[in-house]
Amino acid sequence: MAKDFYTAVADRRSIYGISKDSVVSEEKIREIIEHALTYTPSAFNSQSARIVLLLEAAHDRLWDITKEALRKIVPPDEFGATAAKIDAFQNGYGTVLFFEDQKVVESLQNQFPAYKNNFPVWSQQSSGMHQYVVWTALELEGLGATLQHYGELIETQVKQEWNLPDHWKLIAQMPFGKPTAQPDPKEMQPLADRMRVFK
Amino acid sequence: MAKDFYTAVADRRSIYGISKDSVVSEEKIREIIEHALTYTPSAFNSQSARIVLLLEAAHDRLWDITKEALRKIVPPDEFGATAAKIDAFQNGYGTVLFFEDQKVVESLQNQFPAYKNNFPVWSQQSSGMHQYVVWTALELEGLGATLQHYGELIETQVKQEWNLPDHWKLIAQMPFGKPTAQPDPKEMQPLADRMRVFK
Repeated sequence: MAKDFYTAVADRRSIYGISKDSVVSEEKIREIIEHALTYTPSAFNSQSARIVLLLEAAHDRLWDITKEALRKIVPPDEFGATAAKIDAFQNGYGTVLFFEDQKVVESLQNQFPAYKNNFPVWSQQSSGMHQYVVWTALELEGLGATLQHYGELIETQVKQEWNLPDHWKLIAQMPFGKPTAQPDPKEMQPLADRMRVFK
Repeated sequence: MAKDFYTAVADRRSIYGISKDSVVSEEKIREIIEHALTYTPSAFNSQSARIVLLLEAAHDRLWDITKEALRKIVPPDEFGATAAKIDAFQNGYGTVLFFEDQKVVESLQNQFPAYKNNFPVWSQQSSGMHQYVVWTALELEGLGATLQHYGELIETQVKQEWNLPDHWKLIAQMPFGKPTAQPDPKEMQPLADRMRVFK
């Protein structure tokens, strides 16, 4: 039976141990992304989100690019640990890249100058929503995923490699695969400190 | 039967026509917010989100505050339309206020200076995720909601009114209630322009 919304929300976690073993069809993964792009909201329904799915050699290539970029900035004696972390992402089945189209954001800024400073912020919030929906759906289908942020380091090369538009801004990378290890329990801060109700 | 995740995602819309009629218990609305705060992710599990639920007189008061703040900046001949919009939000059952605790964000910046510029962005993304989870759950329970952004205009007074910490930054307001009108179909841009797959 299909998992209900609340259970899906509760079950989504950061899964760092992932493998290349197939869990669902490639078609299903495409459908997850199409569904997210179709139904996740954006400011003024601007649909600024762009998503790239990397599989097989393209997925491996992304993490090679990331590793080589890190090699240039991480001290040699720390690079072993860094490389191991990147290898763990590369061990997965694929990666979802989340972009926001800056042409769309700038067009909104020009159309509605009163909200000029808000549109980039709302774009980030909408990107977060897209990341969340894809992440939760991947988990729901039995995959494990995490959210990574190497964008500043790899954005130029990623766009060159896959010939992506310059105005797509890389926001996050989500490597995913068959879970090979379960996450530890998550520490929760008391809700009483984070929520208030007034009548 | 509980609605599955994909259906819940597809059914969430901006519902502008809302009333004060009760749809679910106040306890259920609290549970939605507690569930979202418990399970929605944040950078480094920092749990920076803060949520305030306003009901009854407090909900009405929020939109009075907003209307009076708008009266000071909207030209008199346009104020009728503005007031009607705010009244429509006030007609609802309650409002969820989304904040991000800037003390938490600053603490991360101090602990991890390499990501200093990223933490405020990740905080916005995480706030977007929280907004999304609450919105979808309200819709799932038969309520209608929209996401509003009068924060810059009302933040100081909101904090005074409900004695909220200065370091809570107001990100968004979500008025909700029993739906009194269904939304129009949503225009969708072609997925082919928004998604790419590489192997």
